[in-house]
Amino acid sequence: MKKTVLCLAALCAATAATAQSSVTMFGVVDATLAYGTADGPGSASRLRLANSGYHQTRLGFRGVEDLGGGMSASFWLEMGLNNDDGTGIGTNVNNQASGGSVAPAGTQGLTFGRRSTVSLAGSWGELRVGRDYSPQIWNLLIFDPLGALGVGMAQPFSAGAATLGPTFARASNSFGYFLPANLGGFYGQAQYYLGENVRNGAATEDDGNGAGVRLGYANGPFDVAVAASRTRLAAGDVHQNNIAAKWQLGSARLLAEVSRDRNGAVRGHGFILGGLYNVGSGDIRAAYSRYGTDAAGSPRADKLALGYVHHLSKRTAVYTTVARLKNHGGSAQTLNAAVAGGPNGSSTGLDLGFRQTF
Amino acid sequence: MKKTVLCLAALCAATAATAQSSVTMFGVVDATLAYGTADGPGSASRLRLANSGYHQTRLGFRGVEDLGGGMSASFWLEMGLNNDDGTGIGTNVNNQASGGSVAPAGTQGLTFGRRSTVSLAGSWGELRVGRDYSPQIWNLLIFDPLGALGVGMAQPFSAGAATLGPTFARASNSFGYFLPANLGGFYGQAQYYLGENVRNGAATEDDGNGAGVRLGYANGPFDVAVAASRTRLAAGDVHQNNIAAKWQLGSARLLAEVSRDRNGAVRGHGFILGGLYNVGSGDIRAAYSRYGTDAAGSPRADKLALGYVHHLSKRTAVYTTVARLKNHGGSAQTLNAAVAGGPNGSSTGLDLGFRQTF
Amino acid sequence: MKKTVLCLAALCAATAATAQSSVTMFGVVDATLAYGTADGPGSASRLRLANSGYHQTRLGFRGVEDLGGGMSASFWLEMGLNNDDGTGIGTNVNNQASGGSVAPAGTQGLTFGRRSTVSLAGSWGELRVGRDYSPQIWNLLIFDPLGALGVGMAQPFSAGAATLGPTFARASNSFGYFLPANLGGFYGQAQYYLGENVRNGAATEDDGNGAGVRLGYANGPFDVAVAASRTRLAAGDVHQNNIAAKWQLGSARLLAEVSRDRNGAVRGHGFILGGLYNVGSGDIRAAYSRYGTDAAGSPRADKLALGYVHHLSKRTAVYTTVARLKNHGGSAQTLNAAVAGGPNGSSTGLDLGFRQTF
Repeated sequence: MKKTVLCLAALCAATAATAQSSVTMFGVVDATLAYGTADGPGSASRLRLANSGYHQTRLGFRGVEDLGGGMSASFWLEMGLNNDDGTGIGTNVNNQASGGSVAPAGTQGLTFGRRSTVSLAGSWGELRVGRDYSPQIWNLLIFDPLGALGVGMAQPFSAGAATLGPTFARASNSFGYFLPANLGGFYGQAQYYLGENVRNGAATEDDGNGAGVRLGYANGPFDVAVAASRTRLAAGDVHQNNIAAKWQLGSARLLAEVSRDRNGAVRGHGFILGGLYNVGSGDIRAAYSRYGTDAAGSPRADKLALGYVHHLSKRTAVYTTVARLKNHGGSAQTLNAAVAGGPNGSSTGLDLGFRQTF
Repeated sequence: MKKTVLCLAALCAATAATAQSSVTMFGVVDATLAYGTADGPGSASRLRLANSGYHQTRLGFRGVEDLGGGMSASFWLEMGLNNDDGTGIGTNVNNQASGGSVAPAGTQGLTFGRRSTVSLAGSWGELRVGRDYSPQIWNLLIFDPLGALGVGMAQPFSAGAATLGPTFARASNSFGYFLPANLGGFYGQAQYYLGENVRNGAATEDDGNGAGVRLGYANGPFDVAVAASRTRLAAGDVHQNNIAAKWQLGSARLLAEVSRDRNGAVRGHGFILGGLYNVGSGDIRAAYSRYGTDAAGSPRADKLALGYVHHLSKRTAVYTTVARLKNHGGSAQTLNAAVAGGPNGSSTGLDLGFRQTF
Repeated sequence: MKKTVLCLAALCAATAATAQSSVTMFGVVDATLAYGTADGPGSASRLRLANSGYHQTRLGFRGVEDLGGGMSASFWLEMGLNNDDGTGIGTNVNNQASGGSVAPAGTQGLTFGRRSTVSLAGSWGELRVGRDYSPQIWNLLIFDPLGALGVGMAQPFSAGAATLGPTFARASNSFGYFLPANLGGFYGQAQYYLGENVRNGAATEDDGNGAGVRLGYANGPFDVAVAASRTRLAAGDVHQNNIAAKWQLGSARLLAEVSRDRNGAVRGHGFILGGLYNVGSGDIRAAYSRYGTDAAGSPRADKLALGYVHHLSKRTAVYTTVARLKNHGGSAQTLNAAVAGGPNGSSTGLDLGFRQTF
């Protein structure tokens, strides 16, 4: 079977002279049986069919048009979805708490909240506009051995999201710039986004405005990247900073990440240490991670995660992950939606899943 | 024009060695002018543009990957939609009343609530995970001459849905197993689903958990199937049981179904009797059906439905259905959203529609 | 690259004998940096990433099946979307205020509210059923030099929408008829739509029912069209009437439109005067427009808009538009979501955008 791109009538008609234009439908469906338990009096376990334990379930449409002269235009529309029940996933429209509500159960429709962008690219890099990942989230996604998904998701991602609010992973109304690929291993991006408030002199008029930047260097087995961001809020700016590194050692990939964040007066700190080990058609994944804040009591949780992914093909995999979380300083987090018996307890979770991409 | 499957870039690249992989976009758009009237003082008629009078409107994406050795992986994402106004159709996330709300008018977005599954299949059958049809609904869909849609929809479907709650036709968080196809005419499936409540010892901790099974035998002109299911609820389990049969007699297809259900203390009972008669490019459809319960007064309604579908092509059809419903025992049902003049009245409805598949 | 239509498995199998069947995925992604300011004490400006400043962002699926004998069946499912934040756009289910709510921020899912129709066509014209554009809106879309989008959108569109309610641009539950194409330059359509209320004798039982008609004549450089519509409401019918003309003069296209509307006791009136001038790979667009009503004070606003669209390819364009609005008679409209300093002020807005189609 030869490789075929989905070529649409309108597209093909318009680009007869340029051979590198395409529109692609793509997606992931990932289902996982997720079990979580916690300790302490009053604690309770839970068994669910969850999704996206290894790879975030999604459906998307993207396209590239060659404009000639090294220039190209492209779009990317990508929706998240919960394949355990069919619902979509909401978004946030103004990078502030007021822009992201929770729909009544069973009613959340599909949105292109994962990414909805249009780009112009050339030898100078790429300009990208719309709703997109924030620059600083990439270090938490790429340098987490468990991929920031499922029960093994590193603490700087799972707890950081709760601490840092709506611009933690993505921003709406954003303008991004990406360095070109041919910089001798250097890569990077910057993003500016708008809260879209009226300019009336109110203290909150800059709320939801923000910016982030990420710079990295990849050379052979090494990859290192640093990122920083700030979202303005009258109640206290949100800062998100991290640095991460990778070292490929034969079949082993070692990963490390450190986070230093702030939400108003509260400072957050965390790290990830771990790696992957390739065993033929499978990957062993392990990570130790931590995230805590300097709020009263210095709440913090540490997580140890161990998993295995077995690839039945390039598109299809089965996987399992086990994780153990320990709370300190009044923290009461749990894994896989178990109920905590109180602060400072432990929680254990297990994922058993199946993932297909297309 | 040769048969072509939609082959996506990612898919084709990944499966160069296996020729039987594909991704398919599919759908139905069915519009029907629907008129309903009822009798008695205060009754009122209604005229609407409805949808899905013959075939449920939908849009979906499905794919199969050949894994070699007789194994395959597949996914299926299918949304319902109301093509009379453009809205989507919500879903239920936990198989309980709390998991399915009604969105404000005009705001319900598209969801993959009809089906969102991922499967692994082999000579041993198919394992399917996600939101899917319940096993026991198939006897009400397949053995209803009117296809459980439109004004002629058999009473065990239309009234059963109201009686039996959110797991009547589908379940979220489900694990299904399907027998392989080559069992000498025997077929079957089993499904287990989770309510995903916390295990805290509360009486409701099993609410929304359930299971169903369906077994059938098809041989030449005969097909018979039986199904049973139970959804656990502290307020009273929901049981849904039915048996159905088909007999193909030349151009005539005779169909019969019997339902025996229970929702807590209330027992439901119903039947369908009818058939289809093929007249070249069209089908005459007729059914007499009943559904009632043993609630106070033993409310019950009987329906007589007669329809004709004319196929303009394999994909395109026009159709009409007329139905008459009679209430007993305090029942006050109506057809096509007419308003009842009181209990124990009658209602008449007419559908005139157009259906296209792709 | 040869022209290829997306041919789906089901479709191709069913239409082996007819070569003119197809299913097409199509779309637009248009992002615009939008700035608006207003004058007067207390006025406030706003800067946003908006969308659809030149071309409405959308994603759609449409297909045509050749039925033979000059007949064809087709469907059209088209969703709007906000690519600045990923949300969808709601719809209205009953052509009345009660049928269109606003979803909580960030939760509006995708709907096919732009258009969801199924059609049967032949030499006699086209019958189209579902949610569709209203006939009378086309004169406001086609004869506005700025395309009824972005900061330059003509006043009969932007202010008319607020004045005339949910059937201003589209109707749900509609039945449309379109004249065939070969009438020597004459074209036209009629639409009837249902509010779907129960027929109980209440004064509001006809609310949301309505009809519209549009007739035009195009010959060489000239095009003229007239349209009229009425939506019934017990609180006062909504009437929407307009006439418009185009004159192509070499590279220049002159456009004019006049509106005469009514919502209950309030009469609305407006006009558009403007044109486009093609300068090779770009188009200069200019319009002067007005819309006002005879409500207390005779509120009215006039707008002057000037824009330029530069086509990087047939699919990709960059554009800018500047507009100036002046309020009279107590009106307090603003451009690009600026905040007015009070009635009778002015507002200025700027769009700078990028549009890609596929």
